Amino acid sequence: MRVMLTGASGFVGRWALLALARRGADVYAVGRRRPSTDTKFTWLELDLLDENAAGIAVAAAKPDVVLHLAWTVEHGAFWTSPLNLSWVSASLRLAEAAATAGVTRFVAAGTCYEYRWPEDGDCEEQATTLEPRTLYAISKDATRRVIAAYLADRQIDFAWARLFFLYGPGEGTSRLVPAICRALVANEPARCSQGLAVRDFMDVRDVGAALAAVTLSKLTGAVNIASGDGVSVAQVAHKLGALAGLPNLVHLGALPDRAGEPPRITASGARLRTETGFAPSRSLDEGLADALRYWREQTACHGGAA
Amino acid sequence: MRVMLTGASGFVGRWALLALARRGADVYAVGRRRPSTDTKFTWLELDLLDENAAGIAVAAAKPDVVLHLAWTVEHGAFWTSPLNLSWVSASLRLAEAAATAGVTRFVAAGTCYEYRWPEDGDCEEQATTLEPRTLYAISKDATRRVIAAYLADRQIDFAWARLFFLYGPGEGTSRLVPAICRALVANEPARCSQGLAVRDFMDVRDVGAALAAVTLSKLTGAVNIASGDGVSVAQVAHKLGALAGLPNLVHLGALPDRAGEPPRITASGARLRTETGFAPSRSLDEGLADALRYWREQTACHGGAA
Repeated sequence: MRVMLTGASGFVGRWALLALARRGADVYAVGRRRPSTDTKFTWLELDLLDENAAGIAVAAAKPDVVLHLAWTVEHGAFWTSPLNLSWVSASLRLAEAAATAGVTRFVAAGTCYEYRWPEDGDCEEQATTLEPRTLYAISKDATRRVIAAYLADRQIDFAWARLFFLYGPGEGTSRLVPAICRALVANEPARCSQGLAVRDFMDVRDVGAALAAVTLSKLTGAVNIASGDGVSVAQVAHKLGALAGLPNLVHLGALPDRAGEPPRITASGARLRTETGFAPSRSLDEGLADALRYWREQTACHGGAA
Repeated sequence: MRVMLTGASGFVGRWALLALARRGADVYAVGRRRPSTDTKFTWLELDLLDENAAGIAVAAAKPDVVLHLAWTVEHGAFWTSPLNLSWVSASLRLAEAAATAGVTRFVAAGTCYEYRWPEDGDCEEQATTLEPRTLYAISKDATRRVIAAYLADRQIDFAWARLFFLYGPGEGTSRLVPAICRALVANEPARCSQGLAVRDFMDVRDVGAALAAVTLSKLTGAVNIASGDGVSVAQVAHKLGALAGLPNLVHLGALPDRAGEPPRITASGARLRTETGFAPSRSLDEGLADALRYWREQTACHGGAA
């Protein structure tokens, strides 16, 4: 089974790549830059925003299945970036190129921000109303709608993997888990908001594995890529403080709560579990312990190099 | 007020062009081919599906406002054509180019096929649920969603004009009104289905005028471009038979009813009327009489040329 993976050098993509290979797929990686550390996989370095890139990639990879993860992810800016429009177009071109080349299945990444989050329950793929509010989420939702209709007309399977909250190796430094880890590793206070918001967190390595499971399954339609367990930001911060042996350095309430922050964005993980057999390979505590170790090593390396 | 009009050589666009000029707008027409009959307007001949076309058009036209009508319209094929994907992308590029160039307002054409049509009432812009089902309608709806979010972030006004059923000069020969007119003009039976389906028909010249009114108004959001009056296909056929003086040539029920044809697609015209002051300049009887005259002349011309 030849799988073409886009966004293969991204935060999620690099783990999806490994997980697909581990499951025996013949993976063809597409990304702007092949990571220097990777010598195992077949890579095509190109920017899918270039008008002809999708056709070139599909002609080179000759995939049976596409897993499309590439999108703009610039921290903060991606919510309203005009690049969202470019990624809608690039994604439609990719779906068309893939369908024309005869793929049997197309899988792409959506987001939990497509839902109207229930105040006291989990987002479910079928039952929960969609209400994307940002340009990012609206662009993802619109992409799904068009590709689903296009592929349905052509009898090509389509799955849409809605990602929730990720953390883990390779994460951007300004995000929650790295920010707390780096403060703790530096023996400095980790200043947080009250942290009342409840989220579904999943280690990015498990997210990559879940995406590989969905890609190689028969599942069609929307599916949450999530653990199924909600946890508050405060709990995550407390866990990290405890794991670091520095609980007193976690200062909840030191930063103001963000205005308009939704109280709860959690997921039912039932569809993922039932229809693909996937289960996360590590608990939140194990994942956070790894994250702390990762940032300790990063800091040590940078310290050594300086 | 400089208005850039796309699809200016199309069935609707050519009338929107005249109506905008009649209302005093400085119109800059964009289309694949300038009609040989038009010498009055400033034209840029290009294909908006070309990746750089939107930027070129906006740089040349320097519009204050854009009225975007271009889309694939190949009779029958447009419902599922992959060109719908290309037109989503082209429309997003146009919105981005226009916003970047500083337009204050962007107006584009949607369709009544975006609605879930109420069985016993009119489609209303706010109250009626959206449920596009074809690739065409889903692509239009998705385009609206993304452009609305993109322009809202940038405080640029956006209106979305949902077209209902059009007829009139320049219409494709296989469509309802031309098919009946041409049969009657040839003194042949006009074979129809039972014609129970109720639709909102509007003369394309009035549709062009309504689009011009919306474009030059302050209206934002969705608006139906429709007369507000529902009429059955059978009534349209009867009216044409009577206007031609050949009522016995209208054979209702001679063709099978199309499977899955929705019984009623009608519109509230209240928003268009109230917020732009627009009223159609001709009744359905007047419009159909003109259509019959148009096809009589066409046939006479072609007869003379043969």
